[in-house]
Amino acid sequence: MESLILTVGTNPLPNLVVARYLLGQPNHKISSIYLIYSESNRWQKGTKDYADNLKGLLEDTIKIELIPLSDVGNPKKILEDLNNYPWDERMKYHLNYTGGTKTMSVHVHAFFKSKFNIDFSYLDARSYTLRYDNGTYCPTNGDLRDYVKVNIKELLKLHGYEIKSDSFKNTTFDNVLDKFKKSIQEDSYKQFIEWYKNINHIKRENNFRNANDFINNLEQEFPINLKIIAEKFGDDIPEIAKEILDAFPEENKIHLIENGKYQLWVPEQGISKENFKNRVKNTWEYIDGKWLEQYVYDGLRKILQEKGLKENDHYGWSLKSRNRENKEFELDIFLINGYQLIAISITTDAQTNICKSKGFEVIHRARQIGGDESTAILITALNKEKANELQKDLHINTGTSEERFKVFGIDDWKDIEQQILNFINI
Amino acid sequence: MESLILTVGTNPLPNLVVARYLLGQPNHKISSIYLIYSESNRWQKGTKDYADNLKGLLEDTIKIELIPLSDVGNPKKILEDLNNYPWDERMKYHLNYTGGTKTMSVHVHAFFKSKFNIDFSYLDARSYTLRYDNGTYCPTNGDLRDYVKVNIKELLKLHGYEIKSDSFKNTTFDNVLDKFKKSIQEDSYKQFIEWYKNINHIKRENNFRNANDFINNLEQEFPINLKIIAEKFGDDIPEIAKEILDAFPEENKIHLIENGKYQLWVPEQGISKENFKNRVKNTWEYIDGKWLEQYVYDGLRKILQEKGLKENDHYGWSLKSRNRENKEFELDIFLINGYQLIAISITTDAQTNICKSKGFEVIHRARQIGGDESTAILITALNKEKANELQKDLHINTGTSEERFKVFGIDDWKDIEQQILNFINI
Repeated sequence: MESLILTVGTNPLPNLVVARYLLGQPNHKISSIYLIYSESNRWQKGTKDYADNLKGLLEDTIKIELIPLSDVGNPKKILEDLNNYPWDERMKYHLNYTGGTKTMSVHVHAFFKSKFNIDFSYLDARSYTLRYDNGTYCPTNGDLRDYVKVNIKELLKLHGYEIKSDSFKNTTFDNVLDKFKKSIQEDSYKQFIEWYKNINHIKRENNFRNANDFINNLEQEFPINLKIIAEKFGDDIPEIAKEILDAFPEENKIHLIENGKYQLWVPEQGISKENFKNRVKNTWEYIDGKWLEQYVYDGLRKILQEKGLKENDHYGWSLKSRNRENKEFELDIFLINGYQLIAISITTDAQTNICKSKGFEVIHRARQIGGDESTAILITALNKEKANELQKDLHINTGTSEERFKVFGIDDWKDIEQQILNFINI
Repeated sequence: MESLILTVGTNPLPNLVVARYLLGQPNHKISSIYLIYSESNRWQKGTKDYADNLKGLLEDTIKIELIPLSDVGNPKKILEDLNNYPWDERMKYHLNYTGGTKTMSVHVHAFFKSKFNIDFSYLDARSYTLRYDNGTYCPTNGDLRDYVKVNIKELLKLHGYEIKSDSFKNTTFDNVLDKFKKSIQEDSYKQFIEWYKNINHIKRENNFRNANDFINNLEQEFPINLKIIAEKFGDDIPEIAKEILDAFPEENKIHLIENGKYQLWVPEQGISKENFKNRVKNTWEYIDGKWLEQYVYDGLRKILQEKGLKENDHYGWSLKSRNRENKEFELDIFLINGYQLIAISITTDAQTNICKSKGFEVIHRARQIGGDESTAILITALNKEKANELQKDLHINTGTSEERFKVFGIDDWKDIEQQILNFINI
């Protein structure tokens, strides 16, 4: 019989991974787990919540005990607190010191080293292996992502988040997607993007919840000249944009054709809010960028399904979650390789500034719940040069290494699912 | 005589702080310093550059020796490398294990603990104190920021950056600044901001390097209607905007007054690029936001000078630097409290999205060279509610604690220097 001791910091994922892995190793025979966490004090927030979350995820399988450290900023206090616990000298212990602050790891390690003859290990985020103090590591075959599986619900629960009921719900237009797919294969999509460059102001200046607001907005002549943009809706409209617009169901079209000319559909006065919204809101959102999310997800899903991954557990589209303090956590697309979170953010924007903000965001979201092991991907409409520049910029400005963050541009769209899978090595 | 041993990671600031502090303590009599760094390998970049940078900053005062660890991911290797070094059993050593990865700290600490009876300490980023393993800490009076001073040149040099020759150079219009100051005191500045909301499109769509481009741009009617915006330049222009525009020197004015009506100044065909640029470029940049930088800096400088801090060493405006790989590092305003970097980013923008991107950026810049001790401040034109929301959002999305990041909004401008100094507790 063996007891596993884990130091708990603000990223409890390594704790879960180590526990699951060692519990599955017959030579370890782990009978109980100690979670050493820090109490809140003047200088830092404690980690009891994370220890509780871990306990919630593990306690069906094993006995868990929580051990508080009253002041992890004070090495002497750490030793005192640990000394006060009635450790069993006959017990076999294994300390994994991956979690927690540096001082916590140093002094918990020092305590057990001076007191017991035990095994020590840490989870290496770069090689995905458990590295023992004696220089050995495991697994020797493959890496830990092949052995430990964590689903998105568990990953979120570790951080106190719950998946919302409107998660994974997306309005899709499959016939329209086919047109977009075709345009990407035939290289005509840049014509659509070029045409939409002005049209997108109509989307940005409206929320499509109220027909009167929409009608009034279209009278605006400055600073943004929505009037002319609306009037010129069908001027020089490329064939591919026509095909895309025509592919929407009749009751969701944002255009009409008069004497062969494409025009912006404008509601009649008196149409109900509900009818107006139902007709065009989803269409505008789809044209504005949702289509690219579906395009990327569609490509990925086929391959991930074949690999035996489970939808909405190990990959999904439109993840929405919330914690007890009502803080939200969302991802466009996620994918979990074993326990490595890959967060994907998607935008049809081609302005570096806006893409940069989204880049910062997805890097932080990935790290927030996926920890050091996580990877972030940003898919944009930037050209090759700008995408490379932004990627470099964000590597420097966030200290994220090259294997942990990637920016894709418009020229990567054609085989985006392969590009993604190559990058993350799945 | 005593030897100081420091573990060197990717943030060498704590190393410098600890070395400087202990070198100044007569009871320590430090005669040499060992810098333990990691060599590059498949899994991580080494930290030799940082050790070299530290050596460059310290070696005038003391003998420095560099000790490489061949694989910091392998605990056994760490012990082997350290064992191979001919440590002197009669020497008094002091290990500060603040720098480096967690495994590096744990195993370097364990090595010396098992081998020598020495002092151990780490630099606590939260309390700015040196905390010894025996539970004591110093200084007991004040904190280390009162004892250790690092200037911006040194801080940048630690990370391989050098200040560029065009640093700290700003075009200022003191008479105009007086008008802005007055408008903020008298609460008329929101009228200016409101007026400029449309005018700013003229700034955004031009670079003011070529008169012909500017003239052509003003014909644009959509998507942004620069033509009408330019035509309506003087319509409903508030008094305060008139005062501000009039306060520019004659040769830098972007407007003219015809029959009492304010109009956009448009160059005649044939004006040289140089003459056009010299007349309006700085004025547009000043109106667009540079004035707010000067306003904030002006207020801060007076107080910081009184406190005996040195301009461009401990605080400054428009910091520009570059490293050997031509990577740039810039800050609008910086301030160093002892060795704590406070990075300030300033924007007159009132759109949450754009402010958010700037917030991410300044948080990362601050941490990049200021480490865990650094603080970031973002000054915006957001209203109170939006500023608070953005602050909360960025606290969550970057994991930055409340004392390390603050967003100020337009309602904080009146006494911004006091608000800043209160926040950073100077």
